[in-house]
Amino acid sequence: MSCVLGIDIGGTNTEFGLVDREGKIHFSSKVKTRQHATPESLAQSIYDTLQSDVDDIQITAIGIGTPNGNYYKGTIEFAPNLEWKGVIELAKIFQGQFELPVKVANDANAAAHGEMLFGAARGLRDFLVVTLGTGLGSGFVCNGEVLYGNTGMAGELGHVVIHPAGRECKCGRKGCLERYASSTGFMITTKELLELTDSASPLKDIPSSELHASDVDKAARNGDVLALEVFNRTARELARGLATAVAITSPEVIILCGGLAKSGELLLEPTRRCLEEELLQVFKKTVAIRASGLRDGNVAILGAAALGWK
Amino acid sequence: MSCVLGIDIGGTNTEFGLVDREGKIHFSSKVKTRQHATPESLAQSIYDTLQSDVDDIQITAIGIGTPNGNYYKGTIEFAPNLEWKGVIELAKIFQGQFELPVKVANDANAAAHGEMLFGAARGLRDFLVVTLGTGLGSGFVCNGEVLYGNTGMAGELGHVVIHPAGRECKCGRKGCLERYASSTGFMITTKELLELTDSASPLKDIPSSELHASDVDKAARNGDVLALEVFNRTARELARGLATAVAITSPEVIILCGGLAKSGELLLEPTRRCLEEELLQVFKKTVAIRASGLRDGNVAILGAAALGWK
Repeated sequence: MSCVLGIDIGGTNTEFGLVDREGKIHFSSKVKTRQHATPESLAQSIYDTLQSDVDDIQITAIGIGTPNGNYYKGTIEFAPNLEWKGVIELAKIFQGQFELPVKVANDANAAAHGEMLFGAARGLRDFLVVTLGTGLGSGFVCNGEVLYGNTGMAGELGHVVIHPAGRECKCGRKGCLERYASSTGFMITTKELLELTDSASPLKDIPSSELHASDVDKAARNGDVLALEVFNRTARELARGLATAVAITSPEVIILCGGLAKSGELLLEPTRRCLEEELLQVFKKTVAIRASGLRDGNVAILGAAALGWK
Repeated sequence: MSCVLGIDIGGTNTEFGLVDREGKIHFSSKVKTRQHATPESLAQSIYDTLQSDVDDIQITAIGIGTPNGNYYKGTIEFAPNLEWKGVIELAKIFQGQFELPVKVANDANAAAHGEMLFGAARGLRDFLVVTLGTGLGSGFVCNGEVLYGNTGMAGELGHVVIHPAGRECKCGRKGCLERYASSTGFMITTKELLELTDSASPLKDIPSSELHASDVDKAARNGDVLALEVFNRTARELARGLATAVAITSPEVIILCGGLAKSGELLLEPTRRCLEEELLQVFKKTVAIRASGLRDGNVAILGAAALGWK
C-alpha cells in the first residue's frame, strides 16, 4: 500500500502518521519535539520508529507542517516556539534521511490543504482555516489554491493588529489578533475579567496558576456569567480579525480548529453573531463559520499528509 | 483594427476608451456620470459617441470598472457614490446595447488587471494595487490571478478597521482605513492638525472650504512642517493597513495609484519607512512600494480594457 508520511512539528509534540489517498491513517505516533536538539535528530528518530514498527507500507512522499514553515524554500524561519533557531533547512534534512520528496508548509497552511483534501472544505474554492491554539494560525485558499504569497509565508492573520495600543505580542508589536483570539488570549481575558468583576464565579475558587481554558469551558456550560462573557469577548475580537480577512479575501467558509475551537458552539455561536455585526454590508450573510471536518487529533497529521499528496 | 472598449464609471465622471492588445489608447472620451439617471442612458450615450466619432476600429469586447462591481454577476451592488441604487444589472445592459461580451469588476480590481497587462506589475504573480482617491480601493493578485473571492467583491482593504474607536465611516462602522488613507482622509487629517497646532503654516491662510490636497502637497514641497506632518500621519495609517494586507497575502509589490498617489515620493517615502516598522519580522524587506506604471489619467481606462482583453 502507498502512503504519505505526514509530520506535524509543534512546540511541544511532533506527531506523525502514514496516510493513504482517502485520508485513512494507517499508523501514527508522536515524540517530544524538545528532546531533539537538532532537526536531524528528529528526522532520525521518526525514521527509526517507522523502520521498527511499520511493515508493507510504501511511503511515497513526506509533508511537514511546522510553525514558520516556508513552502517555497522548505525551511523553518525564525520560529519563536521552537528550540531550533534561525533558518532550518528542514526539507533537505528529511530528504537526506528518507530519500523521498518533501514538502514543508506553515502548520495552518497545511491544515488548509487537509480540510480541502479530506475535511470540511472539499469542493470549496475560497475558504479560510483558522487554528486557535497557543497562537492563532491561518491558511487561506483563494481560487482553489493555498495562498503562500511571494515569500511562501502568507496567512499570518494572527499578527493582524486589531488594537493599535493593545496587548503586547511576542512579535514585538501591540494588539495582534492572537493576543485576544487564541487559547493564550482567552486565558488573558479570563484573568482580566476575574480581576475586574465583583460578581461570584466558580472560577474564582481556582488558583490563577491552575486555571485552564477547560475550566472556563466547564463553567460556561454550567451557565457562569463571567465564563460566558469570556467567550463573548473572545468571539468579538476574533470576529474583528475575521472581518478583516473577509474584506480582503471574501471566503465562502471559515473553518475553526485547534484547542480553543473544541468549545464548539460556545465559541462558534457568538463568533457568527459578532462577525455579522462587524462585516461590511456587501459581505453580510455570505460567510459560514464551521468547525473542522477532520477528527480531533488528526487535523495536524492529515494536513501535513495532504501537503505530501499534493 | 481590434480594440476593447474600456469604461471606468466613477461617482463624477465616466471615462471610456478603445484600447489595443498592447495597451495603446486609440480613442477616449468622458461623460458626467450624474447626467444619466439610468445606466441604460449611459450605455446609449457611450454607444452614440462611438458611432459618430470612431471609424475602422472593430470593438471585440467591453471591460467596465465601477465602484462595487461584482465580477461574477456583472452587477453594481449598493454603490454609495453612485446615484443608481440597489443592484444594477450592468453587464446585461451594456450587452443589450452593444451586442458584445462584457466583463464588470470593482474599479480597483480592474486597475490590478491593468497593471498586470500593461503597467508596473507585468510578470508579477503576487501584488496589490491600492487606489487612493475619494475612497481607498484595492485589487489583490495572488498566484497570478485577481482575487475576487466567493462573492466577486474581494479586495475591500479600504474597509479594514485600523482604529476600532476611530473616525466614522460612510459604511456605518468606525476606523476604516479609507477614513485615514485616501484624499478624503488626508484632508480630515489636515484640518485636524490645523486646529490642533499653533505653529505657523501657509495652509492657515486658506479658508477651510477652499483647502485642497494640492495645497497641502505644494506647502509640503516648500518645507512646511505641518503639511509634511500630514503626509507622515497619512503614511503611518496607510502603512498599518498595508501591513495587514501583507500579513494575509504577502505580495512582492504594492502599487499606489489615484489622486493622492500623485504626490509621489512625498507619500511613498514615509509609507515605505512606516511599512517596514509595522511589518511582522518575516515580511520585513520583502515588499516594494511603487507608483503606478500606467500613465496618469489612463489607469482607469486601461484597467477596464484589460478586463475585456482577459
